[in-house]
Amino acid sequence: MPGWIPKDTLHFSPEDRAFLEPHLPPRDGSTPKPDLPFTTLTFATSLDSSLSLSPGVPTAISGPQSKAMTHYLRSRHDGILVGVGTAVADNPSLNCRIAGVGGYGSPGFDGQPRPIVVDPSARWDFTEESKLFQLCREQRGRAPWIVTALADPPAEKKALLEKYGGCYVHMDIQATDTGSHRLDWHELLVVLKRRGLRSVMIEGGAQVINSLLEPRYKSDIDMAIVTIAPTWLGQGGVVVSPQRRFDDAGTAVAAVRLANPKWYPFGEDVVLCAQIKQD
Amino acid sequence: MPGWIPKDTLHFSPEDRAFLEPHLPPRDGSTPKPDLPFTTLTFATSLDSSLSLSPGVPTAISGPQSKAMTHYLRSRHDGILVGVGTAVADNPSLNCRIAGVGGYGSPGFDGQPRPIVVDPSARWDFTEESKLFQLCREQRGRAPWIVTALADPPAEKKALLEKYGGCYVHMDIQATDTGSHRLDWHELLVVLKRRGLRSVMIEGGAQVINSLLEPRYKSDIDMAIVTIAPTWLGQGGVVVSPQRRFDDAGTAVAAVRLANPKWYPFGEDVVLCAQIKQD
Repeated sequence: MPGWIPKDTLHFSPEDRAFLEPHLPPRDGSTPKPDLPFTTLTFATSLDSSLSLSPGVPTAISGPQSKAMTHYLRSRHDGILVGVGTAVADNPSLNCRIAGVGGYGSPGFDGQPRPIVVDPSARWDFTEESKLFQLCREQRGRAPWIVTALADPPAEKKALLEKYGGCYVHMDIQATDTGSHRLDWHELLVVLKRRGLRSVMIEGGAQVINSLLEPRYKSDIDMAIVTIAPTWLGQGGVVVSPQRRFDDAGTAVAAVRLANPKWYPFGEDVVLCAQIKQD
Repeated sequence: MPGWIPKDTLHFSPEDRAFLEPHLPPRDGSTPKPDLPFTTLTFATSLDSSLSLSPGVPTAISGPQSKAMTHYLRSRHDGILVGVGTAVADNPSLNCRIAGVGGYGSPGFDGQPRPIVVDPSARWDFTEESKLFQLCREQRGRAPWIVTALADPPAEKKALLEKYGGCYVHMDIQATDTGSHRLDWHELLVVLKRRGLRSVMIEGGAQVINSLLEPRYKSDIDMAIVTIAPTWLGQGGVVVSPQRRFDDAGTAVAAVRLANPKWYPFGEDVVLCAQIKQD
């Protein structure tokens, strides 16, 4: 493979890397908190805070530069996490295509993040033909870890995962009355750190992002990197907007404020890098 | 009044004026289209596109610099328009407090925009004590024009308005089955131009903005100036998001795209200046 560079390789300029650098996980692999990975929340929305036009409909919102940025961010994180909804809807690659990383100009897997799919009921129906495993075969991406509440996930899927070096990660995940699951994100991040990931980038979808923006997780997120495109998708989209918050008197207050916000115009889009305010 | 400058006078730096200049109505009072004013849509939202936490609850979203910017924009428009919801909820001043305009360092009304309140059923219950009329008495703002469907608005309110130099502007406004009104914005803008306003800045609320973002009005809006603050207000806010749009095949498409977007980091916020894409 050395010397051969895939056609879909992406490039991200040194100037653009420079603006992101202060907002990225430390290059020495250290983490702000010993038991947690450096955790980045990142996604692209429209002006009306939509990730896509409808659930399960991938929507090109941000420009080509933002795509390259996402892949550069992936190269700088040990793991990238998505919810099962995204995995089911998008048949995602969840790899990194920046020139120079493993499979894109280099041998091995250096710079390829570990995909993590949060799938409490193990409903993601991947096969050998899923894009992610095709990329594994081509040595252009790592096999996923799938976080599930099932103590005993289907043997066939387990075997397929393990064949490529992936695995199921079992966690106690509380089921709600409606059959959905409430993951303890802090606990998951601790598990991921313990398994060797020093940095994790959380990409979506909306349900994952909104639940991570709940007050209880605000100290778990080290950086938010949000791309906003100059488009209103319109009502009915899949919206990033955290649960409403109230003060002690029962008055609604801003759900999440950001600290040290920096805005970078980027092609037609803008990129916001900020920390969560710990008030 | 000359020489006396009110304490709440605002200042907006020459540097900040420079970035806005290319996006403002021409200084010579010319208009891109002869029968329409130069029309600017402007407002400030949270990251989740909310104008406020709840209907009728004024919410401080953007920073102090953005407030000064709004007032500078007001000094550069002949009229500023809001919906009746905003007038009822906010008891607004709808004047301009930038240093040097009429009432803020200069005699007369130069730089004071004409407030326009769209109030189809004439439900806004203003009195002599409404902030807007207090400001009229202090020669720090102009009296409003109130756009209404009523051919014969209440005589008492009419008299009060006219005493200060304001008036009701009667328009045929279609009532819907549910009793709400559907204003033809194009028609209103023509009326305002005919009455001498060469530029109009439309400030909100959400209902006004969302209806102006409908496809039929896209050629009526010359500029959108949107301030975004680094805060998620959370679900249940008053949201700017236009009606969903579909292509000929019935597939949902982006409701409104912007052309020539420019982003200006501004204090903790970002300001987006752009035209509506005419595709």
